[in-house]
Amino acid sequence: EKPFVFISGPCQIESRDHALTVATKLKKQCDEAGVPFIFKSSYDKANRTSLNAKRGIGIDEGLRILSDIRDELGCPVLTDIHDAQQCTIAGAVVDIIQIPAFLCRQTDLLLAAGNSGAAINVKKGQFLAPWDMANVAAKIASTGNEKILLCDRGTSFGYNTLVSDFRGLPVMAETGYPVVFDATHSVQEPGGRGGSSGGKRAFAPALARAALAVGVSAVFAEAHEDPDNAPSDGPNMLPLEWIPGLLKDLTAIDAITKSRAPSPSY
Amino acid sequence: EKPFVFISGPCQIESRDHALTVATKLKKQCDEAGVPFIFKSSYDKANRTSLNAKRGIGIDEGLRILSDIRDELGCPVLTDIHDAQQCTIAGAVVDIIQIPAFLCRQTDLLLAAGNSGAAINVKKGQFLAPWDMANVAAKIASTGNEKILLCDRGTSFGYNTLVSDFRGLPVMAETGYPVVFDATHSVQEPGGRGGSSGGKRAFAPALARAALAVGVSAVFAEAHEDPDNAPSDGPNMLPLEWIPGLLKDLTAIDAITKSRAPSPSY
Amino acid sequence: EKPFVFISGPCQIESRDHALTVATKLKKQCDEAGVPFIFKSSYDKANRTSLNAKRGIGIDEGLRILSDIRDELGCPVLTDIHDAQQCTIAGAVVDIIQIPAFLCRQTDLLLAAGNSGAAINVKKGQFLAPWDMANVAAKIASTGNEKILLCDRGTSFGYNTLVSDFRGLPVMAETGYPVVFDATHSVQEPGGRGGSSGGKRAFAPALARAALAVGVSAVFAEAHEDPDNAPSDGPNMLPLEWIPGLLKDLTAIDAITKSRAPSPSY
Amino acid sequence: EKPFVFISGPCQIESRDHALTVATKLKKQCDEAGVPFIFKSSYDKANRTSLNAKRGIGIDEGLRILSDIRDELGCPVLTDIHDAQQCTIAGAVVDIIQIPAFLCRQTDLLLAAGNSGAAINVKKGQFLAPWDMANVAAKIASTGNEKILLCDRGTSFGYNTLVSDFRGLPVMAETGYPVVFDATHSVQEPGGRGGSSGGKRAFAPALARAALAVGVSAVFAEAHEDPDNAPSDGPNMLPLEWIPGLLKDLTAIDAITKSRAPSPSY
Repeated sequence: EKPFVFISGPCQIESRDHALTVATKLKKQCDEAGVPFIFKSSYDKANRTSLNAKRGIGIDEGLRILSDIRDELGCPVLTDIHDAQQCTIAGAVVDIIQIPAFLCRQTDLLLAAGNSGAAINVKKGQFLAPWDMANVAAKIASTGNEKILLCDRGTSFGYNTLVSDFRGLPVMAETGYPVVFDATHSVQEPGGRGGSSGGKRAFAPALARAALAVGVSAVFAEAHEDPDNAPSDGPNMLPLEWIPGLLKDLTAIDAITKSRAPSPSY
Repeated sequence: EKPFVFISGPCQIESRDHALTVATKLKKQCDEAGVPFIFKSSYDKANRTSLNAKRGIGIDEGLRILSDIRDELGCPVLTDIHDAQQCTIAGAVVDIIQIPAFLCRQTDLLLAAGNSGAAINVKKGQFLAPWDMANVAAKIASTGNEKILLCDRGTSFGYNTLVSDFRGLPVMAETGYPVVFDATHSVQEPGGRGGSSGGKRAFAPALARAALAVGVSAVFAEAHEDPDNAPSDGPNMLPLEWIPGLLKDLTAIDAITKSRAPSPSY
Repeated sequence: EKPFVFISGPCQIESRDHALTVATKLKKQCDEAGVPFIFKSSYDKANRTSLNAKRGIGIDEGLRILSDIRDELGCPVLTDIHDAQQCTIAGAVVDIIQIPAFLCRQTDLLLAAGNSGAAINVKKGQFLAPWDMANVAAKIASTGNEKILLCDRGTSFGYNTLVSDFRGLPVMAETGYPVVFDATHSVQEPGGRGGSSGGKRAFAPALARAALAVGVSAVFAEAHEDPDNAPSDGPNMLPLEWIPGLLKDLTAIDAITKSRAPSPSY
Repeated sequence: EKPFVFISGPCQIESRDHALTVATKLKKQCDEAGVPFIFKSSYDKANRTSLNAKRGIGIDEGLRILSDIRDELGCPVLTDIHDAQQCTIAGAVVDIIQIPAFLCRQTDLLLAAGNSGAAINVKKGQFLAPWDMANVAAKIASTGNEKILLCDRGTSFGYNTLVSDFRGLPVMAETGYPVVFDATHSVQEPGGRGGSSGGKRAFAPALARAALAVGVSAVFAEAHEDPDNAPSDGPNMLPLEWIPGLLKDLTAIDAITKSRAPSPSY
């Protein structure tokens, strides 16, 4: 089994310089840890809690920046799309397009994503059971595109809170597709600050370790040089200086999990 | 205060004849009960559990049928839309366009809905707290369109199950917008049959009565002459023969609730 | 069908005078509304959030006061018990002994309650599904005592919050035992104030109306002349001046529900 | 930091021979893995789903067996108690008495447990937030007994299902008391089989690994030579042959977690 992949980047593309700076640091941190790196950042935040929240740099400029980062750093890039047309446009540029959790049941979007030819990271809706993701994956796979990743980013638990059910990871893996654990959105508190989402980043490293102890193909964790002042997802993004220690822990746990003897249990 | 409105129809427009037949029966039942009626039906089921499920008749034919039903029966018509472009197209034809629950945080969709000039029924996402709907409504109202209805269709409660939190109805009403209780989707069991959603229609009338006892402006309940053989939402749709008894109960409770003395409680 | 019964009183017996004063007022309010009244108050709060919270007046003095109130006002009295021995002692004095929600699965307690010969109001555990109460009732009924009431006081929903699932009321009624809706504990926020429970009393009347619209045999709602300064359950108890208006609304809804035509739905 | 401890045994003491046989095998497995072992078994199942379920061997015989096992194997023994009197009796014999989850808020029981002088393992109620356990521990500590362990065995998540929220482990550890993760009850499905609880043992090893990746002092996992035919908790107990592989994985992950550099995150 291959070692885990680290998917990271700032929640949104704040500027060309910012994205490239953060990507460069993360790439270096991953290289030093021997962990394959995929850069993630969004060109548009299409479902912010409040209308007044910052939306993003836009698809055209965003894709140019992502493309340049890939060329410059030699790492795959991932971004999220919000309608069928964006699948085609973004899918032609980035390596992996991502289906946001709220949109994971939109059939046309899933088909357009599949038809784009790009790999697709589908986030499990907060309202969905892990076993329901088999139907989601089947919609994409019906296009002939099997480059599918299934990502857990938490499940609704009461109001304004998510819980990570780690039983869901092996359940989703039974589809045969790689499973990603999104550590920073799992500690989000949706709408938890009234006009914006809250979160508790301090829990994200522990949950990421737990996910690798259960067994996943990739960890997703947004990172920023100054999360408390980031335009989105600040409360749950990780400061860049946490990454080396995190990767060290994750690598060690991943090695144990992947060397486990075959077992009737997960 | 005005009496409650009944929003009903078959989950999807199965054919012109079928839609008109069901609408005619429902209009007659509402007229006999003295309850204002709004016909609802979908031209596209855009987020079915499974790819193999029936999608619908399509936007062009669907809007023609809805328009004809309005002309023929003289009742307002409501349908749900799934992207920004459909807001404009459908908003020019129907009286009320509906934002599906999964899409209730998509900013562009809410703005397009507002700009359509139609009234807008926004379903509360299963993943959203009732107080979070104030932010949703504010996105629409930013367009200058204040013809907003906020609709509760249940909240995620464990896996494959929804729960109706009746505290949410007065919380949403504090926005000043009319609140709708969706009785048939509230008893849905999303993904509960593996490849399709389950549901328990027997609970829907009781929950509708409860909603009117708490106080709402409208009840939404899908109805069909043969729900067990309907192409979608069969397990939770109501048989047409349940409607007269239901309307009688609802009317009586509504009258009590709306004649209540002002109170520091809800 | 008989009209609903109102079970009320201050959360705990603060003193003989206080209990009698509140009971007298409630009895008068119920008499004026034509609603049968059962007085409820606790002699011991055995599971307070914090050790520092007030426990209560004790079983001996508490039972004397309850007995005197029954004699003086001519109404049945109800109190909660916490171990098997208390079932026998309290069951010999009061009309109804109550099994606290946390203890609803304790077999010995249920058997002792049954053997006391008193009627028994069992609260559904916050951790229990409504259909699981059939097993709870069967434990009591095994003693030959069928004077059982099943009471819903909310279900765990995330942390520090309860939700009332009104589908649970008819499900519990299928056992054949009368169902009670506890309106004030249903709006409790357990542990919500750190060292004590919070609550939102403003929602309790609306939930009580909803319960009667669904159909229940009794409403339970604790009341106090000054809830904000009560030693326990202050945030969710109702001020006495809310009771007449509440009973008026509940009586009207109860009449509608109980005159409903037989129906395949609830 | 000391390595983790393994608390295990059959759910209930089926007989002297059975208990001793299972304890001997587990002790040997733990010795070979270099993991400290505490034997756990119950003399009474006091809160079974159904009255017809097997209760247990009784306190007198049960404590004699536990005492003999401790003498024979030289390992500490743990058993759960159900009322204040049992705290004194069992606390004089066993090393650790356990407060069942449903009873974790019963003040008198917690005080009696503290006064017994034994160490106390308190299970977090399925209805309780992790931070609420500080109040529970404070009740025990008020007796001067600080030998407290806090144990997570899952949190209510919808009906008949529990979820393990791994954020709760560091939250409970902030009390300063050792935290135990109960892997087999966390995968229980309470009442899930109608007249008895279900469960999915296959998930327990993965959750135990996750708990050690987050960081805990002990793992609790019931084990049996033939779980499918055990008188209680069969669906979630582990077969004895799973234990050596499990301990190997847990030991490796525990070493990584406990050698982590100090960090601002958990």
